Amino acid sequence: MAYIDLQNDLPGIRGPMTYRPETGTVLNELAEILLHAENNTLSRGDREMIGAFVSSLNDCFFCQQVHGAMALHYYQCDIALIDQVKSDFQSAAITPKMKSLLAIAASVQKGGKQVRPDQIEEARKFGATDLEIHDTVLIAAAFCMFNRYVDGLNTWAPQDRQVYIERAPMRAKEGYSQTGLAK
Amino acid sequence: MAYIDLQNDLPGIRGPMTYRPETGTVLNELAEILLHAENNTLSRGDREMIGAFVSSLNDCFFCQQVHGAMALHYYQCDIALIDQVKSDFQSAAITPKMKSLLAIAASVQKGGKQVRPDQIEEARKFGATDLEIHDTVLIAAAFCMFNRYVDGLNTWAPQDRQVYIERAPMRAKEGYSQTGLAK
Repeated sequence: MAYIDLQNDLPGIRGPMTYRPETGTVLNELAEILLHAENNTLSRGDREMIGAFVSSLNDCFFCQQVHGAMALHYYQCDIALIDQVKSDFQSAAITPKMKSLLAIAASVQKGGKQVRPDQIEEARKFGATDLEIHDTVLIAAAFCMFNRYVDGLNTWAPQDRQVYIERAPMRAKEGYSQTGLAK
Repeated sequence: MAYIDLQNDLPGIRGPMTYRPETGTVLNELAEILLHAENNTLSRGDREMIGAFVSSLNDCFFCQQVHGAMALHYYQCDIALIDQVKSDFQSAAITPKMKSLLAIAASVQKGGKQVRPDQIEEARKFGATDLEIHDTVLIAAAFCMFNRYVDGLNTWAPQDRQVYIERAPMRAKEGYSQTGLAK
Protein backbone atom coordinates (compact mmCIF):
# COMPACT_ATOMS: atom_id res chain seq x y z
CA MET A 1 0.00 0.00 0.00
CA ALA A 2 1.63 3.24 -1.15
CA TYR A 3 2.25 5.97 1.43
CA ILE A 4 0.14 8.43 -0.56
CA ASP A 5 -3.11 8.02 -2.50
CA LEU A 6 -1.83 7.51 -6.06
CA GLN A 7 -5.38 7.43 -7.46
CA ASN A 8 -4.55 4.31 -9.45
CA ASP A 9 -3.59 0.72 -8.72
CA LEU A 10 -0.70 0.41 -11.16
CA PRO A 11 2.36 -1.45 -9.84
CA GLY A 12 5.81 -0.09 -9.06
CA ILE A 13 6.97 3.12 -10.68
CA ARG A 14 3.93 3.20 -12.95
CA GLY A 15 1.75 4.26 -10.00
CA PRO A 16 3.54 7.53 -9.14
CA MET A 17 4.36 8.18 -12.82
CA THR A 18 0.66 8.17 -13.61
CA TYR A 19 -0.20 10.13 -10.48
CA ARG A 20 2.20 12.94 -11.52
CA PRO A 21 2.29 12.81 -15.34
CA GLU A 22 4.48 15.93 -15.69
CA THR A 23 7.41 14.15 -14.06
CA GLY A 24 6.25 10.72 -15.28
CA THR A 25 6.66 11.76 -18.91
CA VAL A 26 10.18 13.05 -18.31
CA LEU A 27 11.25 9.97 -16.33
CA ASN A 28 9.97 7.74 -19.12
CA GLU A 29 11.86 9.80 -21.69
CA LEU A 30 15.04 9.36 -19.69
CA ALA A 31 14.51 5.59 -19.56
CA GLU A 32 13.78 5.56 -23.29
CA ILE A 33 17.01 7.35 -24.21
CA LEU A 34 19.21 5.41 -21.80
CA LEU A 35 17.75 1.92 -22.20
CA HIS A 36 15.80 1.64 -25.44
CA ALA A 37 17.08 4.17 -28.00
CA GLU A 38 18.76 2.44 -30.94
CA ASN A 39 21.67 4.80 -31.50
CA ASN A 40 23.83 3.34 -28.74
CA THR A 41 26.90 1.12 -29.02
CA LEU A 42 25.90 -0.59 -25.78
CA SER A 43 23.28 -3.21 -26.60
CA ARG A 44 19.81 -2.92 -25.13
CA GLY A 45 20.53 -6.11 -23.19
CA ASP A 46 23.69 -4.63 -21.66
CA ARG A 47 21.93 -1.40 -20.69
CA GLU A 48 19.00 -3.26 -19.13
CA MET A 49 21.44 -5.53 -17.29
CA ILE A 50 23.19 -2.51 -15.75
CA GLY A 51 19.78 -1.25 -14.59
CA ALA A 52 18.75 -4.63 -13.17
CA PHE A 53 22.11 -5.01 -11.42
CA VAL A 54 21.96 -1.58 -9.75
CA SER A 55 18.32 -2.21 -8.77
CA SER A 56 19.45 -5.42 -7.14
CA LEU A 57 22.16 -3.56 -5.19
CA ASN A 58 19.47 -1.09 -4.09
CA ASP A 59 17.21 -4.03 -3.17
CA CYS A 60 14.36 -2.69 -5.32
CA PHE A 61 12.22 -5.72 -6.20
CA PHE A 62 10.04 -4.10 -8.87
CA CYS A 63 12.90 -2.55 -10.87
CA GLN A 64 15.17 -5.55 -10.70
CA GLN A 65 12.36 -7.81 -11.95
CA VAL A 66 11.28 -5.46 -14.76
CA HIS A 67 14.78 -4.81 -16.04
CA GLY A 68 16.09 -8.31 -15.31
CA ALA A 69 13.26 -9.61 -17.50
CA MET A 70 14.20 -7.09 -20.19
CA ALA A 71 17.84 -8.21 -20.13
CA LEU A 72 16.64 -11.82 -20.32
CA HIS A 73 14.50 -10.94 -23.32
CA TYR A 74 17.28 -9.21 -25.24
CA TYR A 75 20.05 -11.64 -24.29
CA GLN A 76 17.82 -14.66 -24.96
CA CYS A 77 19.72 -16.32 -22.13
CA ASP A 78 18.81 -18.51 -19.19
CA ILE A 79 17.45 -16.69 -16.14
CA ALA A 80 20.34 -18.17 -14.15
CA LEU A 81 22.66 -15.70 -15.91
CA ILE A 82 20.66 -12.73 -14.63
CA ASP A 83 20.77 -14.13 -11.10
CA GLN A 84 24.50 -14.83 -11.40
CA VAL A 85 25.20 -11.24 -12.45
CA LYS A 86 23.29 -10.02 -9.42
CA SER A 87 25.01 -12.36 -6.96
CA ASP A 88 28.57 -12.29 -8.39
CA PHE A 89 29.03 -10.64 -11.76
CA GLN A 90 32.78 -11.31 -11.86
CA SER A 91 32.10 -15.04 -12.20
CA ALA A 92 29.20 -14.66 -14.67
CA ALA A 93 29.42 -15.64 -18.34
CA ILE A 94 29.54 -12.06 -19.64
CA THR A 95 32.28 -10.17 -21.49
CA PRO A 96 35.23 -8.61 -19.63
CA LYS A 97 34.07 -5.24 -20.96
CA MET A 98 30.63 -5.73 -19.42
CA LYS A 99 32.23 -6.77 -16.12
CA SER A 100 34.29 -3.58 -16.14
CA LEU A 101 31.15 -1.49 -16.72
CA LEU A 102 29.26 -3.30 -13.95
CA ALA A 103 32.17 -2.55 -11.60
CA ILE A 104 31.76 1.16 -12.40
CA ALA A 105 27.99 0.88 -11.90
CA ALA A 106 28.50 -0.79 -8.51
CA SER A 107 30.70 2.11 -7.42
CA VAL A 108 28.16 4.68 -8.62
CA GLN A 109 25.50 2.88 -6.58
CA LYS A 110 27.59 3.38 -3.42
CA GLY A 111 28.22 7.05 -4.25
CA GLY A 112 29.66 9.13 -7.08
CA LYS A 113 33.04 9.52 -5.40
CA GLN A 114 33.44 5.75 -5.15
CA VAL A 115 34.24 5.50 -8.87
CA ARG A 116 38.01 5.04 -9.18
CA PRO A 117 40.37 6.00 -12.05
CA ASP A 118 41.56 2.40 -12.31
CA GLN A 119 37.98 1.27 -12.96
CA ILE A 120 37.75 3.71 -15.85
CA GLU A 121 41.13 2.49 -17.16
CA GLU A 122 39.98 -1.13 -16.92
CA ALA A 123 36.84 -0.34 -18.95
CA ARG A 124 38.90 1.45 -21.60
CA LYS A 125 41.29 -1.50 -21.76
CA PHE A 126 38.36 -3.70 -22.76
CA GLY A 127 37.24 -1.24 -25.41
CA ALA A 128 34.69 0.94 -23.63
CA THR A 129 34.31 4.37 -25.25
CA ASP A 130 33.84 7.67 -23.42
CA LEU A 131 30.17 7.67 -24.33
CA GLU A 132 29.71 4.11 -23.06
CA ILE A 133 31.36 5.04 -19.77
CA HIS A 134 29.16 8.14 -19.58
CA ASP A 135 26.01 6.14 -20.20
CA THR A 136 27.01 3.48 -17.68
CA VAL A 137 27.46 6.14 -14.99
CA LEU A 138 24.18 7.84 -15.87
CA ILE A 139 22.19 4.58 -16.09
CA ALA A 140 23.53 3.55 -12.67
CA ALA A 141 22.77 7.01 -11.25
CA ALA A 142 19.29 7.05 -12.80
CA PHE A 143 18.44 3.71 -11.21
CA CYS A 144 19.53 5.11 -7.85
CA MET A 145 16.70 7.60 -8.48
CA PHE A 146 14.12 5.18 -9.91
CA ASN A 147 14.70 2.65 -7.11
CA ARG A 148 14.31 5.30 -4.39
CA TYR A 149 11.18 6.68 -6.05
CA VAL A 150 9.58 3.22 -6.17
CA ASP A 151 10.44 2.19 -2.61
CA GLY A 152 10.39 5.63 -0.98
CA LEU A 153 6.68 5.81 -1.75
CA ASN A 154 6.19 2.18 -0.75
CA THR A 155 4.56 1.14 -4.04
CA TRP A 156 3.35 -2.45 -4.51
CA ALA A 157 4.75 -4.96 -6.98
CA PRO A 158 3.59 -8.33 -8.33
CA GLN A 159 5.59 -11.01 -6.53
CA ASP A 160 5.57 -13.56 -9.37
CA ARG A 161 8.69 -13.14 -11.53
CA GLN A 162 6.85 -14.72 -14.45
CA VAL A 163 4.59 -11.65 -14.71
CA TYR A 164 7.61 -9.51 -15.56
CA ILE A 165 9.03 -12.05 -17.99
CA GLU A 166 5.76 -12.27 -19.88
CA ARG A 167 5.48 -8.51 -20.14
CA ALA A 168 9.03 -7.97 -21.42
CA PRO A 169 8.48 -8.60 -25.17
CA MET A 170 5.71 -5.99 -25.33
CA ARG A 171 7.80 -3.50 -23.37
CA ALA A 172 10.73 -4.15 -25.72
CA LYS A 173 8.50 -3.44 -28.70
CA GLU A 174 6.87 -0.31 -27.28
CA GLY A 175 9.82 1.21 -25.48
CA TYR A 176 9.46 3.45 -22.45
CA SER A 177 7.99 6.61 -23.92
CA GLN A 178 4.67 4.82 -24.20
CA THR A 179 4.57 2.86 -20.96
CA GLY A 180 4.01 3.88 -17.40
CA LEU A 181 1.29 6.38 -18.11
CA ALA A 182 -2.21 5.04 -17.69
CA LYS A 183 -1.51 1.73 -19.36
CA MET B 1 39.67 16.59 -14.49
CA ALA B 2 36.71 14.53 -15.68
CA TYR B 3 37.23 10.81 -16.29
CA ILE B 4 36.10 11.18 -19.91
CA ASP B 5 36.72 13.88 -22.50
CA LEU B 6 33.59 16.01 -22.19
CA GLN B 7 34.67 18.25 -25.08
CA ASN B 8 33.88 21.34 -23.03
CA ASP B 9 35.16 22.96 -19.86
CA LEU B 10 31.82 23.66 -18.19
CA PRO B 11 31.69 22.98 -14.44
CA GLY B 12 29.74 20.29 -12.60
CA ILE B 13 26.71 18.71 -14.21
CA ARG B 14 26.82 21.21 -17.07
CA GLY B 15 29.83 19.42 -18.56
CA PRO B 16 28.22 15.99 -19.12
CA MET B 17 24.84 17.58 -19.89
CA THR B 18 26.40 19.46 -22.77
CA TYR B 19 28.47 16.44 -23.83
CA ARG B 20 25.29 14.32 -24.14
CA PRO B 21 22.51 16.80 -25.00
CA GLU B 22 19.84 14.09 -25.47
CA THR B 23 19.98 13.20 -21.78
CA GLY B 24 21.01 16.72 -20.77
CA THR B 25 17.76 18.18 -22.06
CA VAL B 26 15.67 15.62 -20.18
CA LEU B 27 17.61 16.07 -16.93
CA ASN B 28 17.15 19.82 -17.17
CA GLU B 29 13.44 19.36 -17.78
CA LEU B 30 13.20 17.23 -14.66
CA ALA B 31 14.99 19.90 -12.62
CA GLU B 32 12.72 22.56 -14.10
CA ILE B 33 9.51 20.74 -13.13
CA LEU B 34 10.70 19.73 -9.68
CA LEU B 35 12.52 22.88 -8.61
CA HIS B 36 11.41 25.85 -10.70
CA ALA B 37 7.87 25.28 -12.04
CA GLU B 38 5.39 27.71 -10.49
CA ASN B 39 2.42 25.39 -10.02
CA ASN B 40 3.71 23.85 -6.81
CA THR B 41 2.54 24.41 -3.25
CA LEU B 42 6.10 23.89 -2.03
CA SER B 43 7.99 27.15 -2.49
CA ARG B 44 10.97 27.28 -4.81
CA GLY B 45 13.12 27.96 -1.76
CA ASP B 46 11.86 24.83 0.00
CA ARG B 47 12.41 22.67 -3.07
CA GLU B 48 15.93 24.00 -3.62
CA MET B 49 16.67 23.49 0.08
CA ILE B 50 15.67 19.81 -0.17
CA GLY B 51 18.02 19.47 -3.15
CA ALA B 52 20.90 21.24 -1.38
CA PHE B 53 20.35 19.15 1.76
CA VAL B 54 20.40 15.81 -0.10
CA SER B 55 23.46 16.95 -2.09
CA SER B 56 25.16 17.68 1.21
CA LEU B 57 24.32 14.19 2.51
CA ASN B 58 25.78 12.80 -0.73
CA ASP B 59 28.84 15.04 -0.27
CA CYS B 60 28.45 16.55 -3.75
CA PHE B 61 30.17 19.93 -3.61
CA PHE B 62 28.89 21.35 -6.91
CA CYS B 63 25.21 20.51 -6.35
CA GLN B 64 25.11 21.62 -2.74
CA GLN B 65 26.67 24.96 -3.68
CA VAL B 66 24.39 25.55 -6.68
CA HIS B 67 21.19 24.63 -4.88
CA GLY B 68 22.24 26.07 -1.51
CA ALA B 69 22.78 29.39 -3.32
CA MET B 70 19.35 29.05 -4.95
CA ALA B 71 17.68 28.42 -1.56
CA LEU B 72 19.58 31.43 -0.20
CA HIS B 73 18.31 33.53 -3.09
CA TYR B 74 14.67 32.55 -2.68
CA TYR B 75 14.64 32.59 1.14
CA GLN B 76 16.57 35.88 1.25
CA CYS B 77 18.13 34.52 4.43
CA ASP B 78 21.59 34.47 5.92
CA ILE B 79 23.92 31.79 4.58
CA ALA B 80 24.23 30.47 8.13
CA LEU B 81 20.70 29.07 7.79
CA ILE B 82 21.69 26.97 4.78
CA ASP B 83 24.70 25.64 6.67
CA GLN B 84 22.59 24.95 9.74
CA VAL B 85 20.10 22.91 7.71
CA LYS B 86 22.96 20.85 6.33
CA SER B 87 24.61 20.24 9.70
CA ASP B 88 21.49 19.80 11.88
CA PHE B 89 18.17 20.66 10.29
CA GLN B 90 16.16 19.82 13.42
CA SER B 91 17.68 22.81 15.20
CA ALA B 92 17.43 25.18 12.21
CA ALA B 93 14.99 28.10 12.04
CA ILE B 94 12.66 26.47 9.51
CA THR B 95 9.03 25.35 9.82
CA PRO B 96 8.10 22.02 11.46
CA LYS B 97 6.58 21.01 8.11
CA MET B 98 9.88 21.61 6.33
CA LYS B 99 11.72 19.63 9.02
CA SER B 100 9.34 16.72 8.48
CA LEU B 101 9.97 16.82 4.72
CA LEU B 102 13.74 16.98 5.21
CA ALA B 103 13.48 13.92 7.46
CA ILE B 104 11.79 12.04 4.60
CA ALA B 105 14.44 13.30 2.16
CA ALA B 106 17.22 12.10 4.48
CA SER B 107 15.67 8.62 4.52
CA VAL B 108 15.33 8.57 0.73
CA GLN B 109 19.03 9.47 0.47
CA LYS B 110 19.92 6.36 2.50
CA GLY B 111 17.60 4.16 0.41
CA GLY B 112 13.95 4.01 -0.60
CA LYS B 113 13.06 1.45 2.05
CA GLN B 114 14.40 3.71 4.79
CA VAL B 115 11.32 5.95 4.57
CA ARG B 116 9.07 5.07 7.50
CA PRO B 117 5.28 5.38 7.86
CA ASP B 118 5.70 7.55 10.95
CA GLN B 119 7.74 10.04 8.90
CA ILE B 120 4.86 10.32 6.44
CA GLU B 121 2.40 10.74 9.31
CA GLU B 122 4.57 13.46 10.84
CA ALA B 123 4.63 15.36 7.54
CA ARG B 124 0.85 15.07 7.21
CA LYS B 125 0.42 16.30 10.77
CA PHE B 126 2.22 19.51 9.79
CA GLY B 127 0.04 19.94 6.71
CA ALA B 128 2.01 18.26 3.93
CA THR B 129 -0.21 17.09 1.07
CA ASP B 130 0.18 13.87 -0.90
CA LEU B 131 1.66 15.79 -3.81
CA GLU B 132 4.14 17.57 -1.55
CA ILE B 133 5.23 14.24 -0.07
CA HIS B 134 5.51 12.82 -3.60
CA ASP B 135 7.63 15.72 -4.78
CA THR B 136 9.85 15.57 -1.70
CA VAL B 137 10.57 11.88 -2.36
CA LEU B 138 11.22 12.49 -6.06
CA ILE B 139 13.40 15.57 -5.48
CA ALA B 140 15.49 13.61 -2.97
CA ALA B 141 15.69 10.63 -5.35
CA ALA B 142 16.58 12.87 -8.30
CA PHE B 143 19.45 14.44 -6.38
CA CYS B 144 20.75 10.95 -5.62
CA MET B 145 21.02 10.70 -9.41
CA PHE B 146 22.36 14.20 -10.13
CA ASN B 147 25.00 13.93 -7.37
CA ARG B 148 26.22 10.54 -8.63
CA TYR B 149 26.32 11.81 -12.21
CA VAL B 150 28.44 14.81 -11.20
CA ASP B 151 30.91 12.94 -9.00
CA GLY B 152 30.86 9.59 -10.79
CA LEU B 153 32.39 11.31 -13.81
CA ASN B 154 34.74 13.33 -11.59
CA THR B 155 33.66 16.72 -12.98
CA TRP B 156 35.34 19.89 -11.71
CA ALA B 157 33.65 22.66 -9.73
CA PRO B 158 34.58 26.24 -8.79
CA GLN B 159 35.72 26.17 -5.15
CA ASP B 160 34.61 29.71 -4.29
CA ARG B 161 31.07 29.67 -2.84
CA GLN B 162 30.60 33.27 -3.94
CA VAL B 163 30.59 32.17 -7.59
CA TYR B 164 27.43 30.14 -6.98
CA ILE B 165 25.77 32.90 -4.96
CA GLU B 166 26.38 35.45 -7.69
CA ARG B 167 24.99 33.17 -10.36
CA ALA B 168 21.79 32.30 -8.45
CA PRO B 169 19.62 35.32 -9.44
CA MET B 170 20.15 34.66 -13.15
CA ARG B 171 19.46 30.97 -12.71
CA ALA B 172 16.28 31.82 -10.78
CA LYS B 173 15.16 34.04 -13.64
CA GLU B 174 15.99 31.62 -16.43
CA GLY B 175 15.02 28.35 -14.78
CA TYR B 176 16.62 25.04 -15.68
CA SER B 177 15.24 24.34 -19.15
CA GLN B 178 17.62 26.98 -20.50
CA THR B 179 20.75 26.31 -18.49
CA GLY B 180 23.29 23.57 -18.62
CA LEU B 181 23.46 23.31 -22.36
CA ALA B 182 26.30 25.21 -23.95
CA LYS B 183 25.86 28.27 -21.78
